Amino acid sequence: MSRLSLPDSVLFLVLFLFTSFAVQASSLCSNQGSSLVRNISEIPESNYGIRGLMHITLAGAISHGMKEVEVWLETLSPGSSTPIHRHSCEEVFIVLKGRGTLLLGSSTLTYPGQPEEFLIYQNSTFSIPVNDPHQVLNTDKNEDLQILVTISRPPVKVFIYDDWNMPHTAAKLKYPIFWDEECLHAAKDEL
Amino acid sequence: MSRLSLPDSVLFLVLFLFTSFAVQASSLCSNQGSSLVRNISEIPESNYGIRGLMHITLAGAISHGMKEVEVWLETLSPGSSTPIHRHSCEEVFIVLKGRGTLLLGSSTLTYPGQPEEFLIYQNSTFSIPVNDPHQVLNTDKNEDLQILVTISRPPVKVFIYDDWNMPHTAAKLKYPIFWDEECLHAAKDEL
Repeated sequence: MSRLSLPDSVLFLVLFLFTSFAVQASSLCSNQGSSLVRNISEIPESNYGIRGLMHITLAGAISHGMKEVEVWLETLSPGSSTPIHRHSCEEVFIVLKGRGTLLLGSSTLTYPGQPEEFLIYQNSTFSIPVNDPHQVLNTDKNEDLQILVTISRPPVKVFIYDDWNMPHTAAKLKYPIFWDEECLHAAKDEL
Repeated sequence: MSRLSLPDSVLFLVLFLFTSFAVQASSLCSNQGSSLVRNISEIPESNYGIRGLMHITLAGAISHGMKEVEVWLETLSPGSSTPIHRHSCEEVFIVLKGRGTLLLGSSTLTYPGQPEEFLIYQNSTFSIPVNDPHQVLNTDKNEDLQILVTISRPPVKVFIYDDWNMPHTAAKLKYPIFWDEECLHAAKDEL
């Protein structure tokens, strides 16, 4: 029996990795053109390289052609949190499971400042005032925090802060956001 | 002991009914100014005179000052349905419980025509194309159909059809929508 030579096996490995990546990327962008009614448990989810997060775009600008609203299902593992961030769109949260904390800074000072703290819990809902810096934390030690998030004006343009004392003008634009990155080729000129 | 005279008791009854109505109306509009994080089970729900429906506005234009998105939690009892209707905004559904049918007509003909039929079920999601006439039915005989609905461009302006053969131009505008009626005084001139 013949064996692959070293160059062949390297080529094979490269091809394999490339194909795997392409399949994965394709599967994460594959909601385009899919059926009207979708089983949420079959929609691809990923952590997009963010520790403690699982994200599914249920209806999105990039993946489904939404123009005015976008809906996400996200799970934060115990102890994990979103970055401190702001965006100039409306955002509504519904807590499906778990408990945690919403930290809400100021958009009237030149920096977020000492944030207000709100308990969030299963079967609660809240909206983030447009442009207010905020952070959602799963403060529970055992249970996941599962949230349903609706935003307006997709695709979202997020500004991320290192801490609550960082000036608003120094917050870094993250666009496209993590889950839009690998599908947002054509839309990059929207910025 | 003195007893109320007839005119007094009539007056009392009128006052009682007026006060009851005012309290109910106030409680259904009372999300204004409430705390940022709200317990969904404490938000007023009502059928707004529609048989088989229970509606809660989780985040709304009229009740919470939302400008770009609105989120509803609705329950359709077995056998009940929404009217056939259309609206020029985006709409995303998430089925939390139960099963049913989505009927989707055409916006390219001069009337909705024979609708396409889609099964909807717990943990499924779907979006309604802008301006497409549609109807959501709970086709189950026993179980409620619970849906989470996100719309853009609130407050919603709905056009209602008597049947699938009614011309689009004959569909009747229902604005404000049932659940906005008793709170939407100042905003009526938006139309």
